[in-house]
Amino acid sequence: MKRRALVSVSDKRGVAAFARKLSSLGFEIISTGGTAKALEESRIPVVQVSEITGAPEMLDGRVKTLHPKIHGGILADLENPDHVTQLVEHDIGPIDLVCINLYPFEETVAADPSEKEAIEQIDVGGPAMLRAAAKNFKSVTVVPSSSFYNEVISELENEGQVSEETRRRLALAAFRRTAQYDAAISGWLAVQAGDHDEFPERRFVRYEKVSSLRYGENPHQKAAYYAEEGEEHLLSGVEKLQGKEISFNNLYDLDAARTLLSDLTELEAPAAAVIVKHANPCGAAVGDSLVEAYRKALASDPLSAFGGIVALSGEVDGGLAAEISKVFTEILAAPGFTPEAREVFSAKPSVRVLKAGSLARPALSSKSVTGGVLLQEADALEGGSEYRVVTEKRPSTEQMDDLLFAWRVARTVKSNAIVLVKDGATVGIGAGQMSRVDSSEIAAKKAGDGAVGSVAASDAFFPFADGVEALARDGVAAVIQPGGSVRDEEVVAAANRLGLAMVFTGRRHFNH
Amino acid sequence: MKRRALVSVSDKRGVAAFARKLSSLGFEIISTGGTAKALEESRIPVVQVSEITGAPEMLDGRVKTLHPKIHGGILADLENPDHVTQLVEHDIGPIDLVCINLYPFEETVAADPSEKEAIEQIDVGGPAMLRAAAKNFKSVTVVPSSSFYNEVISELENEGQVSEETRRRLALAAFRRTAQYDAAISGWLAVQAGDHDEFPERRFVRYEKVSSLRYGENPHQKAAYYAEEGEEHLLSGVEKLQGKEISFNNLYDLDAARTLLSDLTELEAPAAAVIVKHANPCGAAVGDSLVEAYRKALASDPLSAFGGIVALSGEVDGGLAAEISKVFTEILAAPGFTPEAREVFSAKPSVRVLKAGSLARPALSSKSVTGGVLLQEADALEGGSEYRVVTEKRPSTEQMDDLLFAWRVARTVKSNAIVLVKDGATVGIGAGQMSRVDSSEIAAKKAGDGAVGSVAASDAFFPFADGVEALARDGVAAVIQPGGSVRDEEVVAAANRLGLAMVFTGRRHFNH
Repeated sequence: MKRRALVSVSDKRGVAAFARKLSSLGFEIISTGGTAKALEESRIPVVQVSEITGAPEMLDGRVKTLHPKIHGGILADLENPDHVTQLVEHDIGPIDLVCINLYPFEETVAADPSEKEAIEQIDVGGPAMLRAAAKNFKSVTVVPSSSFYNEVISELENEGQVSEETRRRLALAAFRRTAQYDAAISGWLAVQAGDHDEFPERRFVRYEKVSSLRYGENPHQKAAYYAEEGEEHLLSGVEKLQGKEISFNNLYDLDAARTLLSDLTELEAPAAAVIVKHANPCGAAVGDSLVEAYRKALASDPLSAFGGIVALSGEVDGGLAAEISKVFTEILAAPGFTPEAREVFSAKPSVRVLKAGSLARPALSSKSVTGGVLLQEADALEGGSEYRVVTEKRPSTEQMDDLLFAWRVARTVKSNAIVLVKDGATVGIGAGQMSRVDSSEIAAKKAGDGAVGSVAASDAFFPFADGVEALARDGVAAVIQPGGSVRDEEVVAAANRLGLAMVFTGRRHFNH
Repeated sequence: MKRRALVSVSDKRGVAAFARKLSSLGFEIISTGGTAKALEESRIPVVQVSEITGAPEMLDGRVKTLHPKIHGGILADLENPDHVTQLVEHDIGPIDLVCINLYPFEETVAADPSEKEAIEQIDVGGPAMLRAAAKNFKSVTVVPSSSFYNEVISELENEGQVSEETRRRLALAAFRRTAQYDAAISGWLAVQAGDHDEFPERRFVRYEKVSSLRYGENPHQKAAYYAEEGEEHLLSGVEKLQGKEISFNNLYDLDAARTLLSDLTELEAPAAAVIVKHANPCGAAVGDSLVEAYRKALASDPLSAFGGIVALSGEVDGGLAAEISKVFTEILAAPGFTPEAREVFSAKPSVRVLKAGSLARPALSSKSVTGGVLLQEADALEGGSEYRVVTEKRPSTEQMDDLLFAWRVARTVKSNAIVLVKDGATVGIGAGQMSRVDSSEIAAKKAGDGAVGSVAASDAFFPFADGVEALARDGVAAVIQPGGSVRDEEVVAAANRLGLAMVFTGRRHFNH
């Protein structure tokens, strides 16, 4: 008996060659619509689905293949004698191979069609056949994508048939495809239905692997970097100009660096620089030139900057490249590099040099816990209109600039965070402590003499006056913090007594 | 014309009442198999699908409904006169309502069936009808779950029809269901196909909301807690005995606390206690009794413990409850509480008291970056067989116990982590610093006099001898660390010169 292949594809690349091979291997090709037309134009003999079903095309093609002559042919278990007898009784021929790929619904809706147009594109017959063929992989070969053509033809040519192992794997690919297809439809329909809920009862997330990673946070952990399908992400539009593979920890630090850089470029300084280490900035600065900003950022904590991730706001020239080359730097990300700069780094192949423009703002962020995720709207900077000076002393214009700068840095530092800033550069960063007083002490110690005349940002309110008193002792002149403690009055009174200026922002920025 | 409803459900709860209502509202009920039988037993008049299709049951029921008489009836656009004319021509009656729920494939495979049995349970006809009805929601009401019965009946009774808005929402639910169903099948088939890849090109993750959260890390961020479907997770089997809602930050800290507690209970001490604040342990201890372990953990950093998350390894009695009550504690998690302990906490309604046994080990963990996730195998403790003493001096038995304890704590502390331990309790924790030397200094400062005679753990190797020299100056007597620096020889030489004992574990435990 002649073997039969049902071929109906949206992606027509390679389908004529595939069908021609099947035909020459003795398959009868059943097809329909545009695929049948394309195959006929390539002079490949085709039997129309309507010839098989004996039913006319109906309802603008909505029910062409949803017919026992097709589905009986796909679903019969050919190892079951009863099934085989029934096929004969009902004059149904088995279908041995089903080659169907679906038009990506994501692309349909990317063109922003009317609801009616989008609905028209929802395929019912195609997924039904894919699913039927995949279910019956013991008897049927399903080919859900053109990427499998070569493998299938090769097995047919060399072994005379497609192995069960391959058929099982193809069935897996088919069910993955239908799952993904329906997820795309429900994603679109959720918007149509006004079901915008960012936090629905059930969430289906589709991730695409962006890159395999050599390992995770530690060498014994396997890892990969995934982006949510269709989302702008950390490496979107980023071009690696040189250097070895980017690691798990590199990516995590790069995200912190680029996020902070984005925040800083909202200030109106000509240039900004950020250095991140172990997920915390160890230096950040704005300046009149990129080289000035970089020097100031580096000066904040040159020891920690060793092996850091550097993100810069402008084009790197040869002179700056030479300076950066003096410090061991894992990654340098900037929107551009002069040929001279490229030349300098070519002698430092260990530096990963990334061409990276501005970073998209994510809508959501998450934290992994055992077996689950804590999902939240991504933290965002408040507009600034709620900021108010709560002390008798007002910050000077320069202090206010430094406070706004410090506030942006504090948001990126792991909590509890205290950040000391002077002249548009961090001078001391107290990060990741279980007590706010400890973070203050660390920041002051890091700043040394630099603390005198500096300003401080605290990512959360001061629960007591002691933290502010300690900062004043270290020479801090102005403080920015959310406010909101039940003891705000005491805290402000202490600031007034010590001659500090203090700004409340009204918004906390914990970041763990 | 009589309206028609096709009803075929796996979950039969409430279906008889639903069909009876439909029937009394003038619907003709079309059904098949077990559902038809159940409805007939409830004396609800039913038309068999085979009466509609005129086709006999075939291939053990595999193609019952895959027929133009059914799908034409579901897919016709009743607002399109051509479609209506064609229905009449082909003697197809429209189907106005499709009520189908699918047997959860997850439950099928949970029973560990043979491949053949599982395949038999893959439904082809049901999803095809659900998808057809959902596509055609402009004309058809799809009811993919018994949870919608009341709403549908209520609209039919009060408005005479189901509104387009509701139909659209039901279509969304239907596509979500089919997406999820096929994802479950592909999940199972991936295992069958030996496609165990934890990091495939595409990942499709299904999350169930465990709880809405009042807000995220900060009050301006909306948030919710999700678990991966079918996974044991942080709150699996956890019972809240009292107290207000658990917050985002509580959950994150609880995960750190329970994870560390699990690690510590692998040591053979009778009792263990952990206190976490801002995602870092601020105290941890083992002891002969739970009260001893708690006191020692609290003594490590009583200031930071204020507002902390406490996890204990045993049943809490009245005496211990009274001690814990003296310190402001956000969450107390323990496997049991005596009636006296419950009594004590009932006077402290602010404490969230959780009954929590052992925590499952997750397979994967992730870190969120802009638009994506860094996915990795969860960090796990090495077996211990690779541990080796690298110094002339060997640690005493007591020191070795303390080193193993410190190593477990260091794994949970944010990197760079240095943990000082004495007599089964942390005495100083240096967390979250961009330089290892800073973490060492913080740990020593926290420990004060307690550093003398203590042991230290470092989550990553010492790049230079200076870190070890500093610890020795502070009085540390033994050190555990991964080893693996190019300068290991210098580091070991310094340890020998200073009379320190040192253990290499061979495995780094960064945790950012």
